[in-house]
Amino acid sequence: MSIESNLLKKERQNVTFSVEELTNVWDGGKEDTEIRRKVVKVFGDDPVLKSPPICTMTREERYTEATRKCVYIFRNMLQKNGIYPGSKEFEHFWNAMPIEYTLLIHMGAFIPCIMSFGSEEQVAKWLPLSANLNIICTYAQTELGHGSFLRGLETEATFDRETQEFVINCPKVSSMKWWPGDMGLNANHALVMANLIVGGKKYGMHPFMVQIRDLSTHMPLPGVTVGDIGSKMGFEAIDNGFLYMKNVRIPRENLLNKNSEVKPDGTYVKKASDRLMYGSMVNLRVNLPKSQAIDVLAKACTIAIRYSAVRRQGLLNPGGAEVAVLDYTLQQHKLIPQLATVYATKFAGEGIIKKHQAFLQNMAKGNISDLAEIHALSASFKASVSEQCTEGVEVCRRACGGHGYSQASGLPHLLSKVTPTCTYEGENTVLYLQTARYLVKCAKEKAADLPESILFLVQPIQNARGNITSLDNLALYFKNRAALCVQAASKKVNQMSNKGLAMHEAWDKSSVQLVHATKAYVIQYIFDAFASFVKEVKCSKSVKEILEDLCCLYGLHYINNCSGDFLKLGILTAHHCNIAEEAEIALLEKLRPNAVGIVDAFDFTDSSMESCLGAYDGNVYERLFDMAKLSPLNKEPVHQASYKYLRPYLLEGRDILEGAKSKL
Amino acid sequence: MSIESNLLKKERQNVTFSVEELTNVWDGGKEDTEIRRKVVKVFGDDPVLKSPPICTMTREERYTEATRKCVYIFRNMLQKNGIYPGSKEFEHFWNAMPIEYTLLIHMGAFIPCIMSFGSEEQVAKWLPLSANLNIICTYAQTELGHGSFLRGLETEATFDRETQEFVINCPKVSSMKWWPGDMGLNANHALVMANLIVGGKKYGMHPFMVQIRDLSTHMPLPGVTVGDIGSKMGFEAIDNGFLYMKNVRIPRENLLNKNSEVKPDGTYVKKASDRLMYGSMVNLRVNLPKSQAIDVLAKACTIAIRYSAVRRQGLLNPGGAEVAVLDYTLQQHKLIPQLATVYATKFAGEGIIKKHQAFLQNMAKGNISDLAEIHALSASFKASVSEQCTEGVEVCRRACGGHGYSQASGLPHLLSKVTPTCTYEGENTVLYLQTARYLVKCAKEKAADLPESILFLVQPIQNARGNITSLDNLALYFKNRAALCVQAASKKVNQMSNKGLAMHEAWDKSSVQLVHATKAYVIQYIFDAFASFVKEVKCSKSVKEILEDLCCLYGLHYINNCSGDFLKLGILTAHHCNIAEEAEIALLEKLRPNAVGIVDAFDFTDSSMESCLGAYDGNVYERLFDMAKLSPLNKEPVHQASYKYLRPYLLEGRDILEGAKSKL
Ligand SMILES: Cc1cc2nc3c(=O)[nH]c(=O)nc-3n(C[C@H](O)[C@H](O)[C@H](O)COP(=O)(O)OP(=O)(O)OC[C@H]3O[C@@H](n4cnc5c(N)ncnc54)[C@H](O)[C@@H]3O)c2cc1C
Ligand SMILES: Cc1cc2nc3c(=O)[nH]c(=O)nc-3n(C[C@H](O)[C@H](O)[C@H](O)COP(=O)(O)OP(=O)(O)OC[C@H]3O[C@@H](n4cnc5c(N)ncnc54)[C@H](O)[C@@H]3O)c2cc1C
Repeated sequence: MSIESNLLKKERQNVTFSVEELTNVWDGGKEDTEIRRKVVKVFGDDPVLKSPPICTMTREERYTEATRKCVYIFRNMLQKNGIYPGSKEFEHFWNAMPIEYTLLIHMGAFIPCIMSFGSEEQVAKWLPLSANLNIICTYAQTELGHGSFLRGLETEATFDRETQEFVINCPKVSSMKWWPGDMGLNANHALVMANLIVGGKKYGMHPFMVQIRDLSTHMPLPGVTVGDIGSKMGFEAIDNGFLYMKNVRIPRENLLNKNSEVKPDGTYVKKASDRLMYGSMVNLRVNLPKSQAIDVLAKACTIAIRYSAVRRQGLLNPGGAEVAVLDYTLQQHKLIPQLATVYATKFAGEGIIKKHQAFLQNMAKGNISDLAEIHALSASFKASVSEQCTEGVEVCRRACGGHGYSQASGLPHLLSKVTPTCTYEGENTVLYLQTARYLVKCAKEKAADLPESILFLVQPIQNARGNITSLDNLALYFKNRAALCVQAASKKVNQMSNKGLAMHEAWDKSSVQLVHATKAYVIQYIFDAFASFVKEVKCSKSVKEILEDLCCLYGLHYINNCSGDFLKLGILTAHHCNIAEEAEIALLEKLRPNAVGIVDAFDFTDSSMESCLGAYDGNVYERLFDMAKLSPLNKEPVHQASYKYLRPYLLEGRDILEGAKSKL
Repeated sequence: MSIESNLLKKERQNVTFSVEELTNVWDGGKEDTEIRRKVVKVFGDDPVLKSPPICTMTREERYTEATRKCVYIFRNMLQKNGIYPGSKEFEHFWNAMPIEYTLLIHMGAFIPCIMSFGSEEQVAKWLPLSANLNIICTYAQTELGHGSFLRGLETEATFDRETQEFVINCPKVSSMKWWPGDMGLNANHALVMANLIVGGKKYGMHPFMVQIRDLSTHMPLPGVTVGDIGSKMGFEAIDNGFLYMKNVRIPRENLLNKNSEVKPDGTYVKKASDRLMYGSMVNLRVNLPKSQAIDVLAKACTIAIRYSAVRRQGLLNPGGAEVAVLDYTLQQHKLIPQLATVYATKFAGEGIIKKHQAFLQNMAKGNISDLAEIHALSASFKASVSEQCTEGVEVCRRACGGHGYSQASGLPHLLSKVTPTCTYEGENTVLYLQTARYLVKCAKEKAADLPESILFLVQPIQNARGNITSLDNLALYFKNRAALCVQAASKKVNQMSNKGLAMHEAWDKSSVQLVHATKAYVIQYIFDAFASFVKEVKCSKSVKEILEDLCCLYGLHYINNCSGDFLKLGILTAHHCNIAEEAEIALLEKLRPNAVGIVDAFDFTDSSMESCLGAYDGNVYERLFDMAKLSPLNKEPVHQASYKYLRPYLLEGRDILEGAKSKL
């Protein structure tokens, strides 16, 4: 056994709590752990799902492998193994998916959309076809020229009464659809969001089913220019595409008409409120943070903490032996707060998912009174979590020194996966501003008119008492800060508009403060939700202590990094800040011996990370060497490029050196 | 002309200063601008240096193209065009290099090293060979198991008196050389840092010339296992390598013996102090920030600001037309402070380069009294600048929304280039700690014993007077903060050791504060140096005003983001903070109309950025579309993977849909 494996083994012997129990808490219960493991095993054992490591493949190979595997999974594996929508198993199968996949937008965005936008008849037609991969359909919203501002989208669908068709056109280069996943190569249909035009009148964005490739030859249909948008920072297996449509004709029935319809004579009929459509957009956003950001940071923590426990570099004690870098306070200060972030955001996120489920039940009964609250909360939560996790993954990556820059570490892949969560499903700045509007509005209301989650905004500021680092007091600091920040930003907007600025200018000139206040609001929510969870969770004392320590660390680390607000607003004094700093260092020291246990509890399989640094056995150096040997540049012992371009000059060198020798 | 091109044209018409004059200031004078442009033109015009865009190539193609071009440049172009070391042209040629290159370590690390470590005779032998590419040599220091901690390196060079040879061995897998650039495929020699062992006694790290590949066949020599370490987050064209040596024998003369020597009888002779070797390590670090970090951020700013001036997304005024995103205060708040960072770090860096040149002149006379100062300054400067620039590039990338995630934007490439500057040439945390030792030491000295740059540490704190946002006052706040932070951290170390902790434990437990204090020290240096430059530079009033505004913005943005320290230490009050916030927003508004002019002044060519978003003409959408068409995945109108894996099911879909139709 290598020295490194031995070191990890010792770490595991020193853990002071039951890793299995923490895994159950993480999964939501013992039964969930079992189901997850069962699904993960089905995937892990299947030889069809084996591929070379992604860091040894070209983009084209990655796309090909991912498509091969996903067709197999969606067409053959799920049913065979009883993994169908609605089952517990289904909730876990994204966890078990190969590292890279395609058909994500088809399965994860198009199918939910057809169910939201389609009439019963339309759903009956398209849903079975798409579930069986008889058609592949993308969700085509974003255009080359517009993403965030939906009203700016330019693609048009003009009703031709004569032929009872819609004619789809992208008037300019900037109007072509751009970015949708699966669209470039795999999709033969697109759910296109386009401006409906009937009799010269514009009716705004509507969803249309547009066939874009022939079902036998897979060739693009006439009027359709479609392809892959090219290489990206990540998601390289996915064929995000462009789609340029010129006079593409589709039957009238292809307007998805659950919410609005065009009658044969051109009459436009609105059947349901746009706000309902809005409600279903929230759906994706609520579920994104866990799988696309929090789990990603959890993997990065697993890699960085296991590696730091075996990476020996330098001396703590000048006379002593080399230490694992995890023994340096500075390394703990980088990594352990990231663990706290994983836990805080995961359990706060579950609160939002529950709220959203309640909202959906109400919506089914026609009651959408909670829409504003759930929208504001989920928008700012998605924005904040994506930023925290992106920052955290990069911290983990750098904390692995040079090897963190190797694809073999798995960390660059995680970074390129998490960072676009700041951009897609609503660009973060735009989301913060939307929440800010809600907060400023709430700040003006009476307590009786507000939902509970936001009440603190209008209630009198409470003072903390007793131990300043208790969870209750930390929660109070965050609440007080959020309330004061929102009030200050609202006041600023008013002041500027009172000074004579137009409202939109006053808003813009206050926008830096508005976003800042919104961030304060959502951090307050996250801390509070995590602290409540920790209080209520049923588990052993030792696991509870871990959770309490992580919660406290989350709060203290945040305060120590952003003490400005707390001091400026009179919530904390310089003395408090000094105590908070020392308390954080003390917590790092306390959590250090359990760090490996805490990441083990995430229970990620080696194959879900493809990381030479983060594998369970700690055999980092052998793994790196083995992976390097697979580099395509090592196929031949002499690469043709060096032979071709360098050799003429090297031969000169040989002659000079041999000449020198023979002169001796 | 596209709407976007027109928008950029208008931006340029509104600029209030002479862009050419600012370019001259940036370059260091009119003459420097001319020389730089001449060199850039020579490279730009040469048809041999044309390649496909890097985002359309596989790693193997990128390595091949880069090697082809670099052999041509170093062997044919430089001499032919009078670009030789020591000339002004030579200083600019890195600016003109293709986006990707190999042979960087050979030219930029090995050649300087042979000159530092080799005797006159050795330099005479190896320098011409390497300058003519008759040999390719890497600088092999880092090992799989060790980077930061040099004393931990494990490769051994054992003197065999019998044969008058050194026998080179990597005792373990973790001892193989790992990471050195050019080593995997191109190098046939390696300057290997290894533990010298003579007669069983260890003498520590010494530099050895080791041949690793045959000069005619380019095959690895016996005992040598060498290859590419595999795919990385960036620098994909470079063959960073592994090198595993088993009983590789080299002649005694191959110990580079300027500083120490092994005589034929095995006597070890030390000729010069190790501190001299240290002095030459500083060299690389002093020159790295400009080319590898600051210029990279400058390019990212160019791309993001030009794009933001033409990207129209949403409304400022609900009744008005769509605006360019650069008109949003929030977008300005992201991007314009990055411009300030570019200027601040560039001119502060020139101060360090000058100090270093003076140091080298003194060193040549045997005086190395400034070594500690220049080392502390350059180490923390490299660390801070690499972090600021990495953060800035990611801010620029995200500020471009979805397109910033496309390789076609050029931004992911810049990010992957800048982020490892936090790791190589000294891992940042390790560098901060080294500087911290110097600062803690200085804080105990008498003023008379300290160099000027650090005097403020031990002098009484001065109070600011008058306009709190003046450059003088801002400089004072930074100085006061740095002095108080260093004093507090020193005090903490003492307190802990007084409490009974061993010195190394006290140091470790205070290390978070020590690093924090070091960051405060170097920001203080950067601000002060930039402010002094701005005061002294000879230029027109309008250009001076731009520089003053950028300097003020740099200070205010920093303070507004880290107000905690300033409040906690009693340097600023809450009232000051509010003024600073408003002053920053006002500066953003003031600088906004000149933003495009300021990035134009960097004078980057389109081909040096390969960015569809950042090209001079602003034709962003056509460029993105043209680039996408070059994606290798679009070679055929139907990709074989979708045809192969999806088609069976699509044919079912065709039959179902046609069956449905025929039933109508
Ligand atoms: C990996 C990835 C996958 C994607 N997949 C899909 C997909 O499957 N389907 C699909 O339709 N789309 C997809 N997209 C596109 C994505 O939805 C958009 O990129 C996203 O909505 C952001 O919009 P944008 O690119 O237009 O950014 P922009 O809105 O142009 O943002 C540019 C800058 O302007 C700022 N800005 C914009 N509006 C305002 C405002 N009102 N106030 C202040 N600042 C503002 C932003 O903050 C940002 O800094 C994908 C994108 C990525 C990166
Ligand atoms: C792109 C790239 C190119 C490179 N090119 C070359 C090359 O050409 N030649 C060459 O020889 N090498 C090269 N390297 C290797 C590089 O020099 C090392 O990666 C670098 O020195 C960092 O060392 P490390 O990887 O051992 O990190 P480590 O020191 O192992 O760092 C891991 C973690 O431990 C922490 N840590 C380490 N020591 C301490 C301490 N005393 N106190 C507190 N924390 C500590 C670090 O802060 C970090 O968080 C390259 C690396 C990269 C990424």
